[in-house]
Amino acid sequence: MTSFVFRREAIVEFGNCDPDETVHVPKFFQYFDTNTWMLFEAALGVATKDFKATFGIMPLVDVRVACHRPVRFGEIIEIASHVSEFRRSSFDVAHKITIDGDLAVEGGETRVWAVHDKNDPAKIIAQAVPQDVIARFK
Amino acid sequence: MTSFVFRREAIVEFGNCDPDETVHVPKFFQYFDTNTWMLFEAALGVATKDFKATFGIMPLVDVRVACHRPVRFGEIIEIASHVSEFRRSSFDVAHKITIDGDLAVEGGETRVWAVHDKNDPAKIIAQAVPQDVIARFK
Amino acid sequence: MTSFVFRREAIVEFGNCDPDETVHVPKFFQYFDTNTWMLFEAALGVATKDFKATFGIMPLVDVRVACHRPVRFGEIIEIASHVSEFRRSSFDVAHKITIDGDLAVEGGETRVWAVHDKNDPAKIIAQAVPQDVIARFK
Amino acid sequence: MTSFVFRREAIVEFGNCDPDETVHVPKFFQYFDTNTWMLFEAALGVATKDFKATFGIMPLVDVRVACHRPVRFGEIIEIASHVSEFRRSSFDVAHKITIDGDLAVEGGETRVWAVHDKNDPAKIIAQAVPQDVIARFK
Repeated sequence: MTSFVFRREAIVEFGNCDPDETVHVPKFFQYFDTNTWMLFEAALGVATKDFKATFGIMPLVDVRVACHRPVRFGEIIEIASHVSEFRRSSFDVAHKITIDGDLAVEGGETRVWAVHDKNDPAKIIAQAVPQDVIARFK
Repeated sequence: MTSFVFRREAIVEFGNCDPDETVHVPKFFQYFDTNTWMLFEAALGVATKDFKATFGIMPLVDVRVACHRPVRFGEIIEIASHVSEFRRSSFDVAHKITIDGDLAVEGGETRVWAVHDKNDPAKIIAQAVPQDVIARFK
Repeated sequence: MTSFVFRREAIVEFGNCDPDETVHVPKFFQYFDTNTWMLFEAALGVATKDFKATFGIMPLVDVRVACHRPVRFGEIIEIASHVSEFRRSSFDVAHKITIDGDLAVEGGETRVWAVHDKNDPAKIIAQAVPQDVIARFK
Repeated sequence: MTSFVFRREAIVEFGNCDPDETVHVPKFFQYFDTNTWMLFEAALGVATKDFKATFGIMPLVDVRVACHRPVRFGEIIEIASHVSEFRRSSFDVAHKITIDGDLAVEGGETRVWAVHDKNDPAKIIAQAVPQDVIARFK
């Protein structure tokens, strides 16, 4: 478990809400996905747009979210994210959304540390996560 | 575990793919969400647009997806969905995406069987799932 | 043409980009939609979540976007929005996205000032835009 | 103006609707984008997934939509699309959404016929639309 936590605030957008007048649950994953990119930018000091050329890609293979209360249009949410585990060539990120300090939503994701195969770009090859990358999250 | 399975085929849309040239993982939840609505329409014989007036709403509280292989723009996928468990006022739906018969993605979701509070529409009240609803999935 | 302009900066999210590695054009409308809500909140001093109870709804009826250059994952964009015309019960909003001061994307939208019919919530009724609302945008 | 028209039916998905209980207007562009891909697949006989390797890309540079009536969750829509004009290296596609034969939404898009620069994939180079491509739409 790493100790580097990235936090940001966001206002819940109309276009992320469904006819139940609350965030359409799959939309939470875009908040999470964006937070993971910002977490890595903050920890590694590499702009997200340079990530592919510097390190490669980090495709999602597993995501989950649990909602403890509905989140409504216009509410201010805080999204806090950290890497909960690094393995050889994959890692987990844990996300918490709070509203006024109360836990509203918890999310998790598993990603692979990978590159596109140079000879066949449609193919993705897992790579060992570099030790100096892992060190930046402590 | 119920035995009523809803299956449909879909072609992977460009707008659901990300710069990795594969389906952006959170987008799987829209395939799943739509399949759940179609599953209930098929089992209950009530059009999705009449569902709210007939039964109420069924907000998602928990979703998860696990990807066994990337899914690419233009591939034909089959999405098969069934209710894996009914509880008093909530239920689980299990989804499988296959490509040419091979399992590509598995998903799950937990929903509440609920109505909007008549006096305060922003409030959601869980209801017991009717026995005759459950019976239609066998 | 009103003079009240709302501006915000945003970083282009991975989940808004498509396999061409640039923003999927329809996604610009969510940036615009959110800016319109923020513009009205800033001009009227009413939180977006209280807008429906205070004024009603403002459904989109017409939107358009023209791209002068591709916008890439991780770029910092500024979105500037203002009401370009108020009519009796509808209005236009104009949006400009710039990157380092260069115009990248222009957008426009037409919305109706409306309420849901109390007797038939599926029905939308246009209303005259109040003069004191219009006055706040000058 | 070409005469080859592609039509498909779709059911309006919950996840495409917003708190006004109608399709979130920007979501119409995904229906349109998908129809354009299917139109080109039908006219050219090349699967969408092989389009990039066979021809290149066709990024959107301009889109617009006009709504004549709200479109609701669960409604069955027909989306009809055709190329309204081919120019040297760009073209326009026109879309109409009808419900029970009544026109509900009209859309239009302008795309460039292009390839990624081999030396700098972030750069997009416009190409002349091949005459035998244009011929297939008559």
